[in-house]
Amino acid sequence: MQQKLYYGAAWYPELWGEAERQQDLQLMQETGINLVRMGEFIWSLLEPEEDSIDVRPFAEHIRQLHAHGIDTVMCTPTATPPIWLTHGHPERLFVRADGAVMSHGSRQHVCTNNPYFRQRAALITEELARVLGQLPGLVAWQLDNELKAHVAECMCGSCRSLWQEWLEHRYGSILELNAAWGTGVWSHTYQRFDQVPQPVATPFLHNSSLVTQYRLFQMEKVADFAGEQAAIIRRYSAAPITHNSNVPFHLDNEQLFATLDFASFDTYASQANRHAYLLNCDLWRGFKPRRDFWLMETGPAYAASLTSYGEPHPDGYLTAEAVAAYALGAGAFCYWLWRQQRTGSEQTHSSIISAWGQPALGYDNVRAASAARLRIEPHMLNTRPLKAEVAIAYSDRAKAFLATEPHRQLNYRSLLGDFYRRILDQGVHRDLLPEGGDLRGYKLLFTPFVHYLSPEYMQKALAFAEAGGIWIVGPLSGGRTAEHTLHTDAALGELERFAGVNTTFVYPMEGTGSIGEAFGCSAPLSLWSAVFEPLPGGASVIGVIKEGRTPGLAYLTEQPYGQGAIVMLGSLPSGGEGDKQLSALIEHYAARAGVTLRSDVTPGTILCPRRGASGDLWTLVNMDGLGGSVTLPRSGQDVLTGAAVPADPLSIGAYEYRLIAL
Amino acid sequence: MQQKLYYGAAWYPELWGEAERQQDLQLMQETGINLVRMGEFIWSLLEPEEDSIDVRPFAEHIRQLHAHGIDTVMCTPTATPPIWLTHGHPERLFVRADGAVMSHGSRQHVCTNNPYFRQRAALITEELARVLGQLPGLVAWQLDNELKAHVAECMCGSCRSLWQEWLEHRYGSILELNAAWGTGVWSHTYQRFDQVPQPVATPFLHNSSLVTQYRLFQMEKVADFAGEQAAIIRRYSAAPITHNSNVPFHLDNEQLFATLDFASFDTYASQANRHAYLLNCDLWRGFKPRRDFWLMETGPAYAASLTSYGEPHPDGYLTAEAVAAYALGAGAFCYWLWRQQRTGSEQTHSSIISAWGQPALGYDNVRAASAARLRIEPHMLNTRPLKAEVAIAYSDRAKAFLATEPHRQLNYRSLLGDFYRRILDQGVHRDLLPEGGDLRGYKLLFTPFVHYLSPEYMQKALAFAEAGGIWIVGPLSGGRTAEHTLHTDAALGELERFAGVNTTFVYPMEGTGSIGEAFGCSAPLSLWSAVFEPLPGGASVIGVIKEGRTPGLAYLTEQPYGQGAIVMLGSLPSGGEGDKQLSALIEHYAARAGVTLRSDVTPGTILCPRRGASGDLWTLVNMDGLGGSVTLPRSGQDVLTGAAVPADPLSIGAYEYRLIAL
Amino acid sequence: MQQKLYYGAAWYPELWGEAERQQDLQLMQETGINLVRMGEFIWSLLEPEEDSIDVRPFAEHIRQLHAHGIDTVMCTPTATPPIWLTHGHPERLFVRADGAVMSHGSRQHVCTNNPYFRQRAALITEELARVLGQLPGLVAWQLDNELKAHVAECMCGSCRSLWQEWLEHRYGSILELNAAWGTGVWSHTYQRFDQVPQPVATPFLHNSSLVTQYRLFQMEKVADFAGEQAAIIRRYSAAPITHNSNVPFHLDNEQLFATLDFASFDTYASQANRHAYLLNCDLWRGFKPRRDFWLMETGPAYAASLTSYGEPHPDGYLTAEAVAAYALGAGAFCYWLWRQQRTGSEQTHSSIISAWGQPALGYDNVRAASAARLRIEPHMLNTRPLKAEVAIAYSDRAKAFLATEPHRQLNYRSLLGDFYRRILDQGVHRDLLPEGGDLRGYKLLFTPFVHYLSPEYMQKALAFAEAGGIWIVGPLSGGRTAEHTLHTDAALGELERFAGVNTTFVYPMEGTGSIGEAFGCSAPLSLWSAVFEPLPGGASVIGVIKEGRTPGLAYLTEQPYGQGAIVMLGSLPSGGEGDKQLSALIEHYAARAGVTLRSDVTPGTILCPRRGASGDLWTLVNMDGLGGSVTLPRSGQDVLTGAAVPADPLSIGAYEYRLIAL
Repeated sequence: MQQKLYYGAAWYPELWGEAERQQDLQLMQETGINLVRMGEFIWSLLEPEEDSIDVRPFAEHIRQLHAHGIDTVMCTPTATPPIWLTHGHPERLFVRADGAVMSHGSRQHVCTNNPYFRQRAALITEELARVLGQLPGLVAWQLDNELKAHVAECMCGSCRSLWQEWLEHRYGSILELNAAWGTGVWSHTYQRFDQVPQPVATPFLHNSSLVTQYRLFQMEKVADFAGEQAAIIRRYSAAPITHNSNVPFHLDNEQLFATLDFASFDTYASQANRHAYLLNCDLWRGFKPRRDFWLMETGPAYAASLTSYGEPHPDGYLTAEAVAAYALGAGAFCYWLWRQQRTGSEQTHSSIISAWGQPALGYDNVRAASAARLRIEPHMLNTRPLKAEVAIAYSDRAKAFLATEPHRQLNYRSLLGDFYRRILDQGVHRDLLPEGGDLRGYKLLFTPFVHYLSPEYMQKALAFAEAGGIWIVGPLSGGRTAEHTLHTDAALGELERFAGVNTTFVYPMEGTGSIGEAFGCSAPLSLWSAVFEPLPGGASVIGVIKEGRTPGLAYLTEQPYGQGAIVMLGSLPSGGEGDKQLSALIEHYAARAGVTLRSDVTPGTILCPRRGASGDLWTLVNMDGLGGSVTLPRSGQDVLTGAAVPADPLSIGAYEYRLIAL
Repeated sequence: MQQKLYYGAAWYPELWGEAERQQDLQLMQETGINLVRMGEFIWSLLEPEEDSIDVRPFAEHIRQLHAHGIDTVMCTPTATPPIWLTHGHPERLFVRADGAVMSHGSRQHVCTNNPYFRQRAALITEELARVLGQLPGLVAWQLDNELKAHVAECMCGSCRSLWQEWLEHRYGSILELNAAWGTGVWSHTYQRFDQVPQPVATPFLHNSSLVTQYRLFQMEKVADFAGEQAAIIRRYSAAPITHNSNVPFHLDNEQLFATLDFASFDTYASQANRHAYLLNCDLWRGFKPRRDFWLMETGPAYAASLTSYGEPHPDGYLTAEAVAAYALGAGAFCYWLWRQQRTGSEQTHSSIISAWGQPALGYDNVRAASAARLRIEPHMLNTRPLKAEVAIAYSDRAKAFLATEPHRQLNYRSLLGDFYRRILDQGVHRDLLPEGGDLRGYKLLFTPFVHYLSPEYMQKALAFAEAGGIWIVGPLSGGRTAEHTLHTDAALGELERFAGVNTTFVYPMEGTGSIGEAFGCSAPLSLWSAVFEPLPGGASVIGVIKEGRTPGLAYLTEQPYGQGAIVMLGSLPSGGEGDKQLSALIEHYAARAGVTLRSDVTPGTILCPRRGASGDLWTLVNMDGLGGSVTLPRSGQDVLTGAAVPADPLSIGAYEYRLIAL
Repeated sequence: MQQKLYYGAAWYPELWGEAERQQDLQLMQETGINLVRMGEFIWSLLEPEEDSIDVRPFAEHIRQLHAHGIDTVMCTPTATPPIWLTHGHPERLFVRADGAVMSHGSRQHVCTNNPYFRQRAALITEELARVLGQLPGLVAWQLDNELKAHVAECMCGSCRSLWQEWLEHRYGSILELNAAWGTGVWSHTYQRFDQVPQPVATPFLHNSSLVTQYRLFQMEKVADFAGEQAAIIRRYSAAPITHNSNVPFHLDNEQLFATLDFASFDTYASQANRHAYLLNCDLWRGFKPRRDFWLMETGPAYAASLTSYGEPHPDGYLTAEAVAAYALGAGAFCYWLWRQQRTGSEQTHSSIISAWGQPALGYDNVRAASAARLRIEPHMLNTRPLKAEVAIAYSDRAKAFLATEPHRQLNYRSLLGDFYRRILDQGVHRDLLPEGGDLRGYKLLFTPFVHYLSPEYMQKALAFAEAGGIWIVGPLSGGRTAEHTLHTDAALGELERFAGVNTTFVYPMEGTGSIGEAFGCSAPLSLWSAVFEPLPGGASVIGVIKEGRTPGLAYLTEQPYGQGAIVMLGSLPSGGEGDKQLSALIEHYAARAGVTLRSDVTPGTILCPRRGASGDLWTLVNMDGLGGSVTLPRSGQDVLTGAAVPADPLSIGAYEYRLIAL
């Protein structure tokens, strides 16, 4: 368990002179910064000529930071290899699906599967770990930087060979691959593994299995790279290792963090998109359940580059963000960046100190958030976020399936975000749970947008229901096999039997005028939908289609299962009425499941329940700047002021936060 | 003449096991399917290793189908060559205009002009024809599949050589080419044929002649490929040969079907786009006037792939589609597809039976349409569609010209579709007539959007007018030469003399506030327009420009010609008032021409007049689901019920069809 | 000084026969054409085989024109090299940033930096100059045609080498380059110049310095090419040399025209965009202050190609354009083109005579403008445009910076055009002044959208203020160094000290609800903005932020400087209220600066003040077709009618022009 809440910033001492560095150390102390992350882009500095490595300047930086009471996250610099690694070697560069070979000049332009890159990455990381690994103040490592943020799947020659090997390992024989992928459909049938292409340009669409497997292959390989790098560090350093990830990146985060020690992420959501900010807090907590997650990068005021920018945060929002993150389980809240870039392509990005050494826009907000951090720190250190009773499945594999099969531009991130927001706005405490997460202890489980339900997941979810949980499956869940093909026994495979339904049809509902009625509310139905008939003696119909192409059939059913139940949600109610119906659904099943970790908190304000040795602590934070309220279940005490708080509705001001011991 | 109406489906026996195949045969019989199309993607199955061909399993499929009363359309599998044909041979692959070389992995990724491909295609087709060509039940052949659906013009090395040879053959000398194309304009002048490029990336625009000629060259070559394949089949089989074409494909259908035996097409128009469905029926009837056309593919409920989908048909629309097609001359109405794909990239496409062997959405509609087919069959077999009195020119060459010169994104297909819809909605029976079609017997001819009017066409159209027909020319017709250059004698060349007009100006009318008045109706004018002055003693002005850049000039004129007349329509009236004016124009000239094959049928309902030994048969079909009416010219008999029908307004219910013998 | 006003047209005698040429000469005379431009695309005609050059036919054309009283602008034909120059030589072709190598077939497909191209271009130009350079009637040369109109930066191998040499010359050592560009940011650091890439495809963004320097490098090289060509001509001909440039082209016009003799430009603005037309007239006057500029190309009615078109001019607008151009300093007003192209890709472009030899749309307007030219000619030749009191900075370098850093799609041309329009609509006479222009004699200087203020410019502008001028700086000005990096002393560098402000923050204001108040008017603020605090004893606050992220800070300040003042405009007021506030600002500072060259002319009508030996001449032209008015400061005389005009409000009719001697 950490002994403090970290409040950090990204620092680039290599880009400035000694005078600025000393000014930075001084100002950081004044600002309350107690953690610095550095080093993610220093490879050419450390190894200006091939084989001539000197990492000692960073030992000195770490020592100086430590002398100022500031701990360090040290990064490996592999996102930006030096020019000598790629100049004259196009075969080491990343190749896009359109065939374009990337140039030196940005970041991630190299293929992380290139053997020579791997060899050089191992050397530089080993040297960093060897020299810095034991230094006082070095409290964590970050591998690389935002892996697969700018690039998706690589189509280079190294990847082609690895892909064909990977397939051979996965399928054993080409006959097996042909059968699994159904390559007979368009005469794609392969004779040998060395013929299987990467999903590059072709007149129409590639086979779904090929495209999805290529995504999974690439995600596995980049996780392997991280694992390899972590193993090197561990030989020299006990400091825990993480990576600054993010939902839109082309990663399987579960696989990635399996080989790392704790989770961290970057987010630059604007205030208008604050549910995405909270989704991140609820998500990254779940990848390493026994460790705090860190928010490794967020802007003091706004994100920007030469070609884009986000809207600056309203005054006061930053403190709300910081308190929310800490209360939801963050061990660190870190800014990108401390001192504005003078050059490059992100000069316009918001920073704490400007390129000319003055407080930048938001500096006062950074100070205020720092003060808030100090006020809440003892209470946060004494408590831990309560495990939620409601879990929502998160799956990067599902994201990959949906990327292959987007229907009309469906996007996993926004679908899941919208779904999440409804649960958030209901005041229900929730965990986003990776596919491999432990379902035990939850009462209510949502599994939306997961085209492929693995046998492991099915077994776990069934056991969860058996033990009394309510499992709500769908929309868009269960209709695909591991190979991204259709089931041939039933539309949703064996799930139907457990759910007590027969899926009559699966079809696109948009434009058909379909209306679904459930919980006394009628709403238009949307998305590709599965519509059901109960099996004899099977499920009860909860939501029925009133108008459209399949009137009378069900889109929402409930089947008792063991002590619990399986609820099938075959379609997505949409529009304002759809919101109401989904709220009623959440309300209904939260009540049925006996969910107690919830409140009547108004949307725009959040409740973060925590528990410590001395009881429960409710952190309330207003995020929308409009203020809100919540009814306290019993009287408590405001731990920041010491004042008693009665068991009444409690008002929260704009961007205000309250810590109430109950 | 066919002895039955075919009701068919695409079947992929190669993708399923014996159990599913037997279930399919059983279910097809029950569903009323009497025709199966198969084989278009089986090359790698038939010839898994180069030179090792075995087509016998398909002989067995044909036999089994026949045993169940189901006839077969056998396809050649050339749209999807096996991996051994392209692996390691990029020179055999299709190359896009942006230089991208296509990968194995979809279909049409090979260049059909590659000599080795042609050699292998000849071998596989010959073997299929040899083994299957005489089998009972084999009633037709389909060549390849949707030629040029996914790709347009190929830029590979084989095509470059053929192009330069083609040019040499066409122009004889490079001097002639330079003169014809006016290559002096931007110093493009060639010294030798081997210097003439394909229209690949260049800073601005290529010469119009080069671009258009390249399109025509490519369309000719793909028709040659079809002709070559057809000739091979004919050596072994008497079954007629077709291809499943479609308007958006990059083909000259007239050239293509010249070497084939009957016309067929695919369409997946949604109900909202039903005029496009009917346009197809009126179009494909014309390519082979003495043969029924076949609708080879349409969805039971909706089209879909991994990345897109159309809206499902409303309940009942399918029967309306089927009856309309048969009544307008279809000999077959076929679905894509029978059993849903389990794998590939079209798993989500609507089918009759699902991948798990159950009736899919629309199955009941397929049954209903089958019943309708049986009811109408004797009446259809006893009659033939009446040749229309009104013809609308259709020209894939015009499509090519407009693709080169789209002004502001003009599209031949949608321009023609909108024009067609107005004639349809006036209740006028019409034929879409290919450029080479026979004009004799028509009374009224529309020739819109044909930039280049060939001498052959001019001569034929003039003879038509001479003999009493009314020829309505334009908009956008006549202003280009065969080389896609301008005339130098007059804006519209010699046409002006026959039409009794001088084209004063040709210019873009949009944005000029031009208003045209004709038939007592004022409407905004649109498109690039030709505006006229009558020659002395020449044309009468019918439509005059009231406001805009050229007030007082004409955009609609009429010149007596022989027993008939030539009407010049220089501009397109637009908006609601434009619709009214065009309706008045159609009404006026239909009356003037003595068109009798028409009725007052309400838009959304169609009349398909047929004639047999025992008299005329009117088929009425409601397509919009709103019902409609028509006034019968005389009393008749409902041939389906036997009831007498008085000579009064007749109501048609939603999606209802009536067959009235008059 | 010219002895006549030229009224010209582009002519392509090489594309037509002798009969058309003779007809053209005859018609030109009748139409009033006294200048012909020809030859820009004749290379393959002059040198059909390599080394076989004959330019004599053009000597004959010049002689015949001269015999008809028509002078000639002769072009060099380097925009369209013959096929033998590029066939089989991809290394000579232009390469786009996406890697596509251009094909022969349009224009500008060759790289002007290719050494062999340069050698051949020198030869053909020398031969033209040698044979034609002394001919009577040859009054000017045009180099090439619309350099960099269709292409931007080339990425070919020749350019790569030149780029690396250019960098070596500029920076001396790679260490200097690394330091200047701050390549440490993403480990881009180079070891040698031969490693510095061109800004081709990379996963995210290149370093801003690299991208901007590459643009500047390319602009310098194309100016070098022009200079080299001009030097060749000058060896044989005394006729002045120009180029037909335009704002959107990828050129540094100041650098380009430094080696040429006079400025000319092309414009095809539609009437709706007439402020862009006037901006051009005010801009090109400034590149060669002591010479008339020529309008080298404009459409008689509209611009068009195969794929696009503009709206035809309203009847009467052409005369307004011509009179406005002459009155604002044009020595020539020329059409593109005389006789419509028969072939190529611009057949649809508006011309004076059609491809079939008849007057085309707008011919009567061309005649009317010719008559107007003759009426005003003596008065124009007797006077010169008055130098304005108000200057607006124009900088192609600023355009390059903004192209590298467009924030959210900002575009220099439209930003500057909108800014210019406000000054125009206030009735203020104005000069657009290139960065290197002479500021002496102006009273008010606007310098908006110039990210980098060079030391030379700063010095000049400070001297201007010192001497009593008012310098209005911003928005978006001053925040970048020559290397496209940030200042490290202050947000706007040393400018702040002179302006008496401290820039507190620089941030994106859009979406923050910021409201600025100045001159009694409140308006939303937009763009990336600099917000200020006055230095102690420094600037006065004129505009203050009332709402948003930084209330209380200034966005508009004023600092006395010498006899004048420096006004900082940190943000751009937007919307209708923003227009009002900017008008108030212009009004206020024009009054403060003592600007007298202005009037109350209504927007849509323009005033062009000129002066001659016999006094001042006001030319008034209505451009919007709605008519307008102006108050005359004193009574005068209409020099066209001789009538006295009282010192009263004067009405101007639709497209009317008046020449009033005051």
